This record gives sequence, structure tokens and C-alpha cells, in this order.
Amino acid sequence: MTGTESRSEVATGRLYGLGVGPGDPELLTLKALRLLKASAVVAYPTLEGGASFARSIVAGHLTGGQHELPIRVPMTTERAPAQQAYDAAAVEMAEHLQAGRDVAVLCEGDPFFYGSFMYLFGRLAERFAVEVVPGVSSLTACAAVLGQPLAARNDSLAVLPAPLPDAELRARLAGAEAAAIIKIGRHYPRIRALLDAEGLTPHARYVERATLPEQRLVPLAELGEASAPYFSMILIHRRGEAWRWPQD
Amino acid sequence: MTGTESRSEVATGRLYGLGVGPGDPELLTLKALRLLKASAVVAYPTLEGGASFARSIVAGHLTGGQHELPIRVPMTTERAPAQQAYDAAAVEMAEHLQAGRDVAVLCEGDPFFYGSFMYLFGRLAERFAVEVVPGVSSLTACAAVLGQPLAARNDSLAVLPAPLPDAELRARLAGAEAAAIIKIGRHYPRIRALLDAEGLTPHARYVERATLPEQRLVPLAELGEASAPYFSMILIHRRGEAWRWPQD
Repeated sequence: MTGTESRSEVATGRLYGLGVGPGDPELLTLKALRLLKASAVVAYPTLEGGASFARSIVAGHLTGGQHELPIRVPMTTERAPAQQAYDAAAVEMAEHLQAGRDVAVLCEGDPFFYGSFMYLFGRLAERFAVEVVPGVSSLTACAAVLGQPLAARNDSLAVLPAPLPDAELRARLAGAEAAAIIKIGRHYPRIRALLDAEGLTPHARYVERATLPEQRLVPLAELGEASAPYFSMILIHRRGEAWRWPQD
Repeated sequence: MTGTESRSEVATGRLYGLGVGPGDPELLTLKALRLLKASAVVAYPTLEGGASFARSIVAGHLTGGQHELPIRVPMTTERAPAQQAYDAAAVEMAEHLQAGRDVAVLCEGDPFFYGSFMYLFGRLAERFAVEVVPGVSSLTACAAVLGQPLAARNDSLAVLPAPLPDAELRARLAGAEAAAIIKIGRHYPRIRALLDAEGLTPHARYVERATLPEQRLVPLAELGEASAPYFSMILIHRRGEAWRWPQD
């Protein structure tokens, strides 16, 4: 669009944070698809080896004529290396935006639901026009594949990252009708022991890689592994022990 | 599909719970669109006057040759009238499914995120094949239009229906980094007083009809009305008072 401007100054491009959903390429929205195809530059986070889950979700829609901008964020709990990666990516994106090229950042799930897009947003939103396109989050995708309502009526729902301390997890789980524990990974044994102790295991189900062909659904009580992948979640509902749901 | 079966017995249809997103028709997923177009019967909740928000979201995609099945759920807090409406709808849907016709139920937002689809699911899932297609929920849509991350890193996030008692709301808000208060409507004055008393108003933003042309975004401190529509939400983030977001 901006290329057709008749003024001598080039209009800056727009930055899009595109939620691409939990994994099934068909869970992309029409809006994300349209903006993806129309963007000159497509950016996405990658693992150290170069593989990008977000890119794999939309691979079938890339036009081939787009400039790709992989963001190599080191897998570490230290902040400095990640900070540097986002700094570098933001500089590169700013150059494209300044030159009038739209930049689409692919975000697994939803950009603002525990997503790393916020780090780019924080670096660029003051200087450039940014639009965030919400996506299907892993939270509702897990409930859908389980055939288990996430929350209903006046249920309170707690979303809890597994790295939180035990005392905080216990306090938040204590009164919530429904809960989702995310970012499980290496925290699984601790989380499992905590849920066992709180009597919540019979109300809990485990989901791994929801909506992908390799998805796995297991009642938590039947899950024996010592660890879990990053893309896993435990859903808990206090009325869900019978695996049946209210009819009224 | 089922109509081409050569056996004398007709295969039963499938029931789809289709999340159609928060309001912007472009926030429909490719999967919901495909299944919507392929379903012989399209069902949706309606208000007493006959208007259906869910139907309006996908109106541009209805083929014209589909049988429409409005579900007239009375707006009341009593359970019996709603129960009767779901009973009647389930009977009608079962007839279509039994005759081999797929039935798509349109669900605002996501079917299992505080959605009424669970009542039909509870009545039909034991007898018929059901597939739930997750959608973009109002939760992440509100964060997107506000340009405000919903939750990040190890934030705990509390989703709280406004009708909950004050003491429970206070307890759940006390430690959560992030919170969303949903189903506000006539509870607005009480919720506002509670957030004022807890010192959370400066950290809160109000969103009405997110992603629709008539959407409204207001810092809660600037909202004066005595009530709010049903389709509104308050998002709170304890690090959000400066309307700035972390860069690391």
C-alpha cells in the first residue's frame, strides 16, 4: 500500500502481531491470513537449530516472495541474552517499517496471552503503528480437544504458570472452580505432587500439543512421566471428576 | 457426506460447536468457516426478539441453502426456562443428526469459555459424534484491542465473573498479577466500588464490544456510567499503571 503513496516521503509500514493459533493450521483466522499474505516481511521466533513452530503453522500460506526475519531467542532463564535478541530484531524490524514495509510477527496461540510478542511491542509501539490480531489460545484449544468446558456460569478460573512457588499455587488453586496450569515442562513432578496432595488429581486432565496430529490427552491420574514438554497444560475443574457436564 | 453412504442405514450426522470469535467476522477461523459451509443445519442462540449475535458474525458465509435452527433462550436467571429451551433444541438437533445431517452450533467467542454450548454438549455428546472448534475468546480480543498484554512470564491470571460475591472477588484479586472481570452488566457499580477500594482502578481498563465497529476502550478511572452492557470486560494488570510494558 505504502509504495503507491505519491508524496516524496515514504509512509512507514505497520507492525502486526498475528496470533496463529495453537498448532492446527486451520485454526488461523481469516484476518491473520489476510495480513500475513499482504505483509512484505514475516518475522517469527526460532529455536537455536532454526526450526520455528509459529512458521510451521502458516507455512502453507507464505507467498514465497516475502522477506523472512527469524528471531533467534536463546533458550535460557537469563534475561540478558533474550533482551539482546529482541533488541537486534527490533532494530531490523524498525528498518523495514521505516522503509514503508509492513512486518508481520507470527505468534503461537495469541500474541498477548503469555506471548513473547510483548517484548517487540514494548520496543516498537511508540514509534510505529502496531495492530495485534488475537488468535485461538492454547487455553481454549486444550478444553476443546478434551471435550471439557474450561469454565462456565460463575466459575472463577485461575491460569497459573507452573514455575510459581508451591505456596502461591496452593493458595490460587484453593478456591478456584477451574484452573489451567501452563508452562509445565520440567516442573511436572512438583506440580503432580502438589495436585495429589490437594486432592485435585482426579479432577485434572493433561494435554500435550493440542490440535496437532501428535496431540495427547490423558487423565492426570494415569500420567506417569517424570517430565512434560513445554507445550503441555493441565486443566482442572472441580465439577469435572465424573467427566460429565451439567445439562441445565 | 453421509448421504452418499451405500448402506441402508443412514450414518448419523456430526455435531459441531463452532467458536466464531468475539465479533469481527474476520476473526473466524478457517476451520470454523469450512465446517459452517459444509453443515446442513446451522443453529444459534437468539434473543427474544429473534436477533442473534453469533449469526450476525458469520452472516456473510451462510450458503442460503442451510436449514437454520434458532435457539430461543429466555433471558432470566431462573434455570427452568433455559433448561426447557435447551431440551427442545437438543430434541430438534437429535432428529437432524439421526437423519444424517451435520449440525453446526454457532458460539460467540469460544464454545467452552463460559459458553452456553456446554448445555447442548451435555445433552448430545453421549449419543452423537461431537467436535468442538475453539475460537478467539473475548479475553484475548480485549487485550489485543487495548494493546495491553493480558499476562506474561509467570503472572497468575484470574478470570472472575462479576456476579461472584465481593469477598470472593477480593480474595482472588488480592494476589493475582493479572485479572479479567467478565459478565459485568448491572454489576458495574459494585465492581467499580470494589476496585476503587482495593486500589486497582488505576491499573484497570474497560472494554465494550471488542473488535466491533462500536467498540469502546476507556481507562476505568474515566468511566462514569452506572451500568455496562453484557459484552464488556475489565482487564487489570498490576504492572500496567503506566500504560507501558516491559522490554526485557
